[in-house]
Amino acid sequence: MIKLNRITKNGRAFFLAYDQGLEHGPEDFNDKNVNPKYIIDIAKKGGYTGIIFQKGIAEKYNKEIKKSKIPLIVKLNGKTNLFKGEPIARQLCTVKEAIKLGAAAVGYTIYLGSDYEDEMLHEFEKIQREAHLKGLPVIVWAYPRGKSVKNKSKTKLMSYAARTGLEIGADIIKISYKGNISDLKWAVKSAGKTKIVIAGGIKKNEKELLNQIKEIMKAGCIGVAIGRNIWQSKNPLEITRKIKKIILK
Amino acid sequence: MIKLNRITKNGRAFFLAYDQGLEHGPEDFNDKNVNPKYIIDIAKKGGYTGIIFQKGIAEKYNKEIKKSKIPLIVKLNGKTNLFKGEPIARQLCTVKEAIKLGAAAVGYTIYLGSDYEDEMLHEFEKIQREAHLKGLPVIVWAYPRGKSVKNKSKTKLMSYAARTGLEIGADIIKISYKGNISDLKWAVKSAGKTKIVIAGGIKKNEKELLNQIKEIMKAGCIGVAIGRNIWQSKNPLEITRKIKKIILK
Amino acid sequence: MIKLNRITKNGRAFFLAYDQGLEHGPEDFNDKNVNPKYIIDIAKKGGYTGIIFQKGIAEKYNKEIKKSKIPLIVKLNGKTNLFKGEPIARQLCTVKEAIKLGAAAVGYTIYLGSDYEDEMLHEFEKIQREAHLKGLPVIVWAYPRGKSVKNKSKTKLMSYAARTGLEIGADIIKISYKGNISDLKWAVKSAGKTKIVIAGGIKKNEKELLNQIKEIMKAGCIGVAIGRNIWQSKNPLEITRKIKKIILK
Amino acid sequence: MIKLNRITKNGRAFFLAYDQGLEHGPEDFNDKNVNPKYIIDIAKKGGYTGIIFQKGIAEKYNKEIKKSKIPLIVKLNGKTNLFKGEPIARQLCTVKEAIKLGAAAVGYTIYLGSDYEDEMLHEFEKIQREAHLKGLPVIVWAYPRGKSVKNKSKTKLMSYAARTGLEIGADIIKISYKGNISDLKWAVKSAGKTKIVIAGGIKKNEKELLNQIKEIMKAGCIGVAIGRNIWQSKNPLEITRKIKKIILK
Amino acid sequence: MIKLNRITKNGRAFFLAYDQGLEHGPEDFNDKNVNPKYIIDIAKKGGYTGIIFQKGIAEKYNKEIKKSKIPLIVKLNGKTNLFKGEPIARQLCTVKEAIKLGAAAVGYTIYLGSDYEDEMLHEFEKIQREAHLKGLPVIVWAYPRGKSVKNKSKTKLMSYAARTGLEIGADIIKISYKGNISDLKWAVKSAGKTKIVIAGGIKKNEKELLNQIKEIMKAGCIGVAIGRNIWQSKNPLEITRKIKKIILK
Repeated sequence: MIKLNRITKNGRAFFLAYDQGLEHGPEDFNDKNVNPKYIIDIAKKGGYTGIIFQKGIAEKYNKEIKKSKIPLIVKLNGKTNLFKGEPIARQLCTVKEAIKLGAAAVGYTIYLGSDYEDEMLHEFEKIQREAHLKGLPVIVWAYPRGKSVKNKSKTKLMSYAARTGLEIGADIIKISYKGNISDLKWAVKSAGKTKIVIAGGIKKNEKELLNQIKEIMKAGCIGVAIGRNIWQSKNPLEITRKIKKIILK
Repeated sequence: MIKLNRITKNGRAFFLAYDQGLEHGPEDFNDKNVNPKYIIDIAKKGGYTGIIFQKGIAEKYNKEIKKSKIPLIVKLNGKTNLFKGEPIARQLCTVKEAIKLGAAAVGYTIYLGSDYEDEMLHEFEKIQREAHLKGLPVIVWAYPRGKSVKNKSKTKLMSYAARTGLEIGADIIKISYKGNISDLKWAVKSAGKTKIVIAGGIKKNEKELLNQIKEIMKAGCIGVAIGRNIWQSKNPLEITRKIKKIILK
Repeated sequence: MIKLNRITKNGRAFFLAYDQGLEHGPEDFNDKNVNPKYIIDIAKKGGYTGIIFQKGIAEKYNKEIKKSKIPLIVKLNGKTNLFKGEPIARQLCTVKEAIKLGAAAVGYTIYLGSDYEDEMLHEFEKIQREAHLKGLPVIVWAYPRGKSVKNKSKTKLMSYAARTGLEIGADIIKISYKGNISDLKWAVKSAGKTKIVIAGGIKKNEKELLNQIKEIMKAGCIGVAIGRNIWQSKNPLEITRKIKKIILK
Repeated sequence: MIKLNRITKNGRAFFLAYDQGLEHGPEDFNDKNVNPKYIIDIAKKGGYTGIIFQKGIAEKYNKEIKKSKIPLIVKLNGKTNLFKGEPIARQLCTVKEAIKLGAAAVGYTIYLGSDYEDEMLHEFEKIQREAHLKGLPVIVWAYPRGKSVKNKSKTKLMSYAARTGLEIGADIIKISYKGNISDLKWAVKSAGKTKIVIAGGIKKNEKELLNQIKEIMKAGCIGVAIGRNIWQSKNPLEITRKIKKIILK
Repeated sequence: MIKLNRITKNGRAFFLAYDQGLEHGPEDFNDKNVNPKYIIDIAKKGGYTGIIFQKGIAEKYNKEIKKSKIPLIVKLNGKTNLFKGEPIARQLCTVKEAIKLGAAAVGYTIYLGSDYEDEMLHEFEKIQREAHLKGLPVIVWAYPRGKSVKNKSKTKLMSYAARTGLEIGADIIKISYKGNISDLKWAVKSAGKTKIVIAGGIKKNEKELLNQIKEIMKAGCIGVAIGRNIWQSKNPLEITRKIKKIILK
């Protein structure tokens, strides 16, 4: 079985996510956090167990990333939020390329329920196979999305997403937390040996965020992949320290 | 001709199916049967002639599977039930990968009559060829599905599905039992040298289930691929024992 | 130029077609002719110059086929009749695989005028090239089909189909006979050095059938590819003998 | 740069086109010209600088073509006129295969403005590259077609087609003559170092045809690719002689 | 990191764009500038740091290009403006081919927000990877286009396009300047280590153009990729000289 130790600490995952530039455009950014170096700096000082970039940033800021010694997680697919039809994100980086860039793990998004679900599940197969051949963990961003899932229970979709990760061979599955702690516990159970990290999502107030993370850890998740709540914060290292205390102990 | 002896006993097949996690989500599960280990344990104690998993479970629970000595059948394609359009399930595991995982056979679903029938039939060609090259039996889940077949006779579709299995080179075809015993006999005849196993389907009361299995065997099928009726049962080993008595004798 | 002598006798072709199981389902069959062995037996005793199977039957009944010494023609694509949209039949067997099965020729259906005509013409290119590289004749089932050809003259479509066979490199083209003998003569001329065999089609009374075959031969076709009119007959060998007398002389 | 001398004489091109059998069906033909040998004979006696066939004819009549010594131009894609949707013609012969058949050049049609323009431009890339690697000239049939171009100026489309030929790397571009001589001169200029030949189109009276060809040559085109006006003529060699006088001098 | 020195001077880029023949047809041209040699001559005398051609021109005018010593930038995809549906431009030249033609860089257009965004992003991945393997810089033409982006803020789209270039691994991104200088500064920041050049667009009066270029440079762009404003000018070298003074200093 693929080992997660390069991107976890005592089995816990604390990832700094920064693939929003492609997914949402620079609207999420300000003058500071628009700069990948600022993010790498936070990751380094904050002691994250992984930092998530698309190929372009992983390549252009490779020296800075290597110097920081933060494990690199390369996101292998993505899309802009401009196209308004059924969501699809195709491969934008190969496993081989990610390894050349020094990746300790790779990520791939699947929009479950989308008209193009089959294409993403199928493309993922090759990526998962190649990554595991090289001993590289694979993280799946599992997001139910598209017109087919519009009126479905978010809670049920959460556990379905978690289970899908196990069935298709993900090592870690990144999902959004919907429902209460008992729903999340069920999702964790559904994922079996596949581990779960929770997406940070849009910026929340600190108290709410920290409480949520406590719940997440109680539910059996191994951590979070968090972005905006950190680098949009006025004091990213302070909030980092508080979260780290909960997750990494 | 491909030998079935690794996944049959005296020519009879008694498969424990557990690909529902991807196909239906964890809604089919409870706290016990959500865990693949529980399923492997039933398969082992119950003396099944094969256990059916998607790649992810086959990989993450490989030690447990190998230890159980239950022959592994890897399902090579699948989909969630979230997308509401014409059904398509693409390849999620290669034959080569399945062999590495220790597979004694592989499975593939074709939705006959779907808008994407041609893609699945075509994708199956490569899988069947590669599997037979390695001496691996191929099981086809043949399910007529989609708007084109909506008002067609279920009975005629059953025998058509069975025949399709023969024509495209399946070694075993897994179909749903629709109609009476004489319809099923015709399906068995239509399949020629290709063997038929019947899908268990949703949970039934025990008497009904056992009677149905008796009919199935009388009709000339070689067995069943059963899931929910076993692992949703309060006493899976008891129902297993009763079915085994009918099938394996 | 590719030699046809392995599947013809004195330049004449008398093929027993049995790909209906996939194309129409077992509805065409009864308790006897549902069994491929029954068909192989007719072919053997009747002295056919070729027998047409899909890969699955060619593989599972390979011993019986080889023993019969009837030249094997493997149909390389096919579809069910369940899907109700524009017709498409994708590759279900490779040329290499057909050769391994002992094929003396291969067949491929193209639905001319279908929305997917371009895909079939393109897929055929590879098949034709590979087959000719190995010295294997290629038979095209050329069927104008789909909404674009709905109101077109059947007669003109017949000669167009014949010509298409020549232009794309078929060695034999199998068409349906529509119109009168002079229309068919024109189709034969249009096909140039590509030979024509006529599809038997649905069961007719004997007299009508024999008269039609006489016309076919007079028009310059090299024979027929006939199925239902033989194996749905009460006395397949008797009708075979009568047709053979016309075709093979 | 690719040399055109194998398919031109003093830089002039006089091609006999005979790919209509696939594009229009045998409706264009009569008892004589339906036979490729008749066409090869005209090409030989008429002294054409090239003869255009699809793969099937190039293969089946290869001896006759070689004996005639007329340079062979293999058309690498095509379609029937049966399908009524947006036009697309996919590859039906490879460059390698064309070379094996003795081709001195290859041809490819692109329907500019069609919904499938991108697929044809993309497929052409591979063909152009492979052909040039082997020193083989590439002729593009550039036809604006489809619902997007319905109300556009034919004259502007003519020069756009010519320019496209240059931009994508064609050595010769075959277009239809629309507008007056000054429009055609502009098309010739737009094509730069890419040469232009004009398609003959449907049968015209002799005087009109010869005048048009004079204009074509004055405009700077290098010749014509003509079919129906020759082989539908009662005296093909006479009309050939008259055109040759204008083109080859 | 990929070096840009072959196509820049003191880090500044001054590219002469001439891919309009495919994108718009010869309508943009007159008797002089329709001729690639005229353009190459301007590039040479004007001292541009790069000249942009499609494969066809790069191949047919290769001697002239090499003689001019102006670095060649080969545009690897393109389309006509005839098709009226959602924009897509597929690969029309390989990286390998571009290198054979002497390219110092390659370009690729992505229509962000188009229904086919995913196909272009995915195709680009291979190009970027191959180019970087050979040390070749990659320029992305990033144009938000299609029905999904119709009512979006042009300014926000500009910075999104710039950011996308960074995320997917472009070395230079070519965008259209929309909004004011502070918007452009934000786009430059969003692009991080990826450099920005501005597209010239349709012909403007000289004063307006020069002022715009001053702004562009102040905003932190490295230069322009300009076409029509140069070669449609009555005195291309004079306007070139004025722009060069601003950009290259």
